[in-house]
Amino acid sequence: MRSGSTDLWLTDDQQNVWRAFLAASVVIDDALDAALRPFDLDLGEYEILVKLSEAEDRRLRMSDLADRVRQSRSRLTHTVSRMERKGLINREACPDDRRGVIAVLTRRGFALLEEAAPTHVRSVRDAFVDRVEARDFAALGRAMRAVLEGPGR
Amino acid sequence: MRSGSTDLWLTDDQQNVWRAFLAASVVIDDALDAALRPFDLDLGEYEILVKLSEAEDRRLRMSDLADRVRQSRSRLTHTVSRMERKGLINREACPDDRRGVIAVLTRRGFALLEEAAPTHVRSVRDAFVDRVEARDFAALGRAMRAVLEGPGR
Repeated sequence: MRSGSTDLWLTDDQQNVWRAFLAASVVIDDALDAALRPFDLDLGEYEILVKLSEAEDRRLRMSDLADRVRQSRSRLTHTVSRMERKGLINREACPDDRRGVIAVLTRRGFALLEEAAPTHVRSVRDAFVDRVEARDFAALGRAMRAVLEGPGR
Repeated sequence: MRSGSTDLWLTDDQQNVWRAFLAASVVIDDALDAALRPFDLDLGEYEILVKLSEAEDRRLRMSDLADRVRQSRSRLTHTVSRMERKGLINREACPDDRRGVIAVLTRRGFALLEEAAPTHVRSVRDAFVDRVEARDFAALGRAMRAVLEGPGR
């Protein structure tokens, strides 16, 4: 679906970078998931452990947790239920809001995070950080911040 | 989960770029999905339309289609069933392999792709291509190819 007749379509160069970005995202996700498998964790679960470990008292309202992770709210509810069954998280009623729910990292959840973290970080290095030249890495950071910061040139 | 005691952990800079990459991926996916919603398509469905439109006779064995898209095989089966119900794709038995299935783009599927493509490309420009400085864009391409090409420096 590309034609040379208008400025709308991507150039071959732009198309190549765009497709490489999509493909690299999948390769990275797959590598990180594979690294976490021996810990019986996937990337979504790991991300939740990290966010709770960084929160005060290792607890967050579900709505705050939802704002901090990469998954949709419906998937988050699903993931948190699974993690509760594994004993990594408890859900508690919110004292000042009858309909609110708080997710609390358990001691076991924190221990699993500590155990998995070195392997996870190693996989981020192997699949991403250590593959990219330092110069390109800085440019990548600027590019991603430009995407996050809104309307461009 | 970061400490200064070993070279394993990411530096603050590396951590920032890594988190920006993850966050930007979500922002881009969300923007592209939103742009396709008026066409009753999501990004996974759009990708399947594109791959079939690029294939000879607009048809691909399901196993070949699976190799070309970003979704898992189980999700692909699900997505293709939904697209078949919408009349965008037909599934046919493979003549030379009793267990093989071929996905065929319908005339209606191709028409919908033609209709949605300008809006999709516009969203790729708005969310990604046009936000990044040309210089950083080239570096981003090198970085993504380094991720895809294997072991780094």
